[in-house]
Amino acid sequence: MKDFEYYAPTKVFFGKGYENKAGEIIASYGYRKVMIHYGGGSAKRTGLLDRLEASLAGSGVEYVECGGVQPNPKLSLAREAIGLCLREKVDLILAVGGGSVIDSAKCVAAGAADPDTDPWRYLNREKTVEKALPVGVVLTISASGSEMSSSCVITNEEGWLKRSFNSDLVRPLFALCNPELTYSVSKYQTGCGTVDIMMHTLERYFTTDGEAPLTDRLAEGLLKEVIAAGRIADQNPEDYDARATLMWASSLSHNGLTGLGRDYFMSAHQIEHELSGMFDQVAHGAGLSVLFPAWCRYIYRYAIDRFCQYAVRVWNLEMDYSHPENTALAGIQATEDYFRSIGMPTRMKELGIDPTKEQIEEMAEKATFFGARTFPDYIPLGKKEIVEIFRLAE
Amino acid sequence: MKDFEYYAPTKVFFGKGYENKAGEIIASYGYRKVMIHYGGGSAKRTGLLDRLEASLAGSGVEYVECGGVQPNPKLSLAREAIGLCLREKVDLILAVGGGSVIDSAKCVAAGAADPDTDPWRYLNREKTVEKALPVGVVLTISASGSEMSSSCVITNEEGWLKRSFNSDLVRPLFALCNPELTYSVSKYQTGCGTVDIMMHTLERYFTTDGEAPLTDRLAEGLLKEVIAAGRIADQNPEDYDARATLMWASSLSHNGLTGLGRDYFMSAHQIEHELSGMFDQVAHGAGLSVLFPAWCRYIYRYAIDRFCQYAVRVWNLEMDYSHPENTALAGIQATEDYFRSIGMPTRMKELGIDPTKEQIEEMAEKATFFGARTFPDYIPLGKKEIVEIFRLAE
Repeated sequence: MKDFEYYAPTKVFFGKGYENKAGEIIASYGYRKVMIHYGGGSAKRTGLLDRLEASLAGSGVEYVECGGVQPNPKLSLAREAIGLCLREKVDLILAVGGGSVIDSAKCVAAGAADPDTDPWRYLNREKTVEKALPVGVVLTISASGSEMSSSCVITNEEGWLKRSFNSDLVRPLFALCNPELTYSVSKYQTGCGTVDIMMHTLERYFTTDGEAPLTDRLAEGLLKEVIAAGRIADQNPEDYDARATLMWASSLSHNGLTGLGRDYFMSAHQIEHELSGMFDQVAHGAGLSVLFPAWCRYIYRYAIDRFCQYAVRVWNLEMDYSHPENTALAGIQATEDYFRSIGMPTRMKELGIDPTKEQIEEMAEKATFFGARTFPDYIPLGKKEIVEIFRLAE
Repeated sequence: MKDFEYYAPTKVFFGKGYENKAGEIIASYGYRKVMIHYGGGSAKRTGLLDRLEASLAGSGVEYVECGGVQPNPKLSLAREAIGLCLREKVDLILAVGGGSVIDSAKCVAAGAADPDTDPWRYLNREKTVEKALPVGVVLTISASGSEMSSSCVITNEEGWLKRSFNSDLVRPLFALCNPELTYSVSKYQTGCGTVDIMMHTLERYFTTDGEAPLTDRLAEGLLKEVIAAGRIADQNPEDYDARATLMWASSLSHNGLTGLGRDYFMSAHQIEHELSGMFDQVAHGAGLSVLFPAWCRYIYRYAIDRFCQYAVRVWNLEMDYSHPENTALAGIQATEDYFRSIGMPTRMKELGIDPTKEQIEEMAEKATFFGARTFPDYIPLGKKEIVEIFRLAE
């Protein structure tokens, strides 16, 4: 087992109705003035915002609102929100939403704690975050795992640069996780979330470092139950236990637990960034649903044992000892069939896009920083290999 | 899934040589004066204390020593240590050892932060802990999980009362976990530790609340790997990966993760307290190794499905659909055989004790607070039932 550091200090309040205790919880930490950060109108429409504000008021916690966070959250809005926090002397950012809102809140938290540093400097890796306001979360979508993670991804509209920073200082202080709040998430978004959750563990699972057997078991167990719960939630959006499994798995899948003791590649994530970078309509989970099976079909021959373990333990497939490659391929097929069964695309055309040969070459070139790097993977992935993977997704 | 709160803020530094970074890590938090708390002579003898002190000195962190913590740590020593902390203006307690040392450090941390309150008041549940000095851990035995837990168990020699408190304020700030430091743990203590780790998950696993499937999988996965690693460590004490699995599992098995979303009973733990209360020579893990199979054999008929799931998923046994009780019993037998295979006792006589009928009645009576309570379990356990369980351990 490789050395690791594990730090997951977020206090998770999991269950029905915790959003109604937001005021009490925030007051118990001693905070007095909150900025409620949220996305589109759904938090308003469903009455969630009203309930939160009633809870805050009931505990004597003041608040200001800042909505309008978009998918792929934008730096300009974060900067506006930082200004609001400073003017209003906010001492805690309350993110109400999913990954985009939480990431925006993290950026605001860092920016508002040090007004002399524009947050772009953190995202552009010119400066390390040294302080941050606390972030609280009211989770409404199970997918990103940002509610327990240290990562923050923001898009700068000047040049459309998508950049990220990681800092333990922006790990949320607490997360209020009520699975019922996800009942209204659409079938498609539920599918995207299920894939995203699985991918955070899968990308940590396919690695050359085999000797972390406890981590393997936790990862495999999580995958089995996410697969089952994703299927149930797709059929019955108001199944509490399925929604609960997805919600708790979203946190565990990205807080580090399922990858401890080994390195990992994250190749599908990196290739997907190029796809959704070029084609804005591609949702992250949907892009992964297309590109992960393609990556698997390209790479499995270099990691037959690992793909067999995945097929046998996660998908309960028989091991074919004479032809292990059959077992490996059957596991990949099972994954792809599953993604399809919950309404997810597995080919680029099903994303509503049809990249030309030139566009594929361009994405591969960008992914390798125009030839300046290859991806570490079971074999190094350069432009040629990435083009092959895109082809397998056609 | 039942509602839950999850909070595991301890920063874990896991791998070879982290004890040599103790000074650097403590200095990075801004602490300047440490009390090193440890047990018998082994920390001194192995040179660990010297290496720690060199590391502290190298980072300009001052220290004082307080050794002599015994198994079942004593209140009198904790009180002495509190006096030392106050005189020396210590700002962090560094526990070097296993559960006993860490628990003693937690007691000292609470006591030294509020000198006007004798720590017995926390243990005797007269007062809640309101502040505590930070506790750091250098772990040398994989067993208790105290390195990530909120619990503190101390014995007051006046009246020989064993009492505990729980407080998030005494969850260790950090834990330095180097599996190599456990190479020298004896076969017997390794066995006790393996049982203790399994029990922290098993006692959370056997519950009436079935609908936490993700928690089930994490628990089952952890058990499978602890079983495998315990076997390897028993045969080859210097197998790094096995020692690493046991060490990481000890933390995960008692930080809450493997029991989230359901209630649990902890009956075997409670009955074992009476046994080691009456017979001081009984090690906690060894007592559990005797009493857990006995509890299983008594209770399984009220929870056949659960015992079958355990047998099938943890022990890979075939499900006998016509006679499920056979599957349940086979899982219990496998557990008992396993405990025996790693040198653990499974009958009271093998603990070197042979309680009389009267002593068994007395222990059962004490366990029920002289008839004032029954244990919640698959069926309520009163004196009669507890006597039966002891009988099954004869």
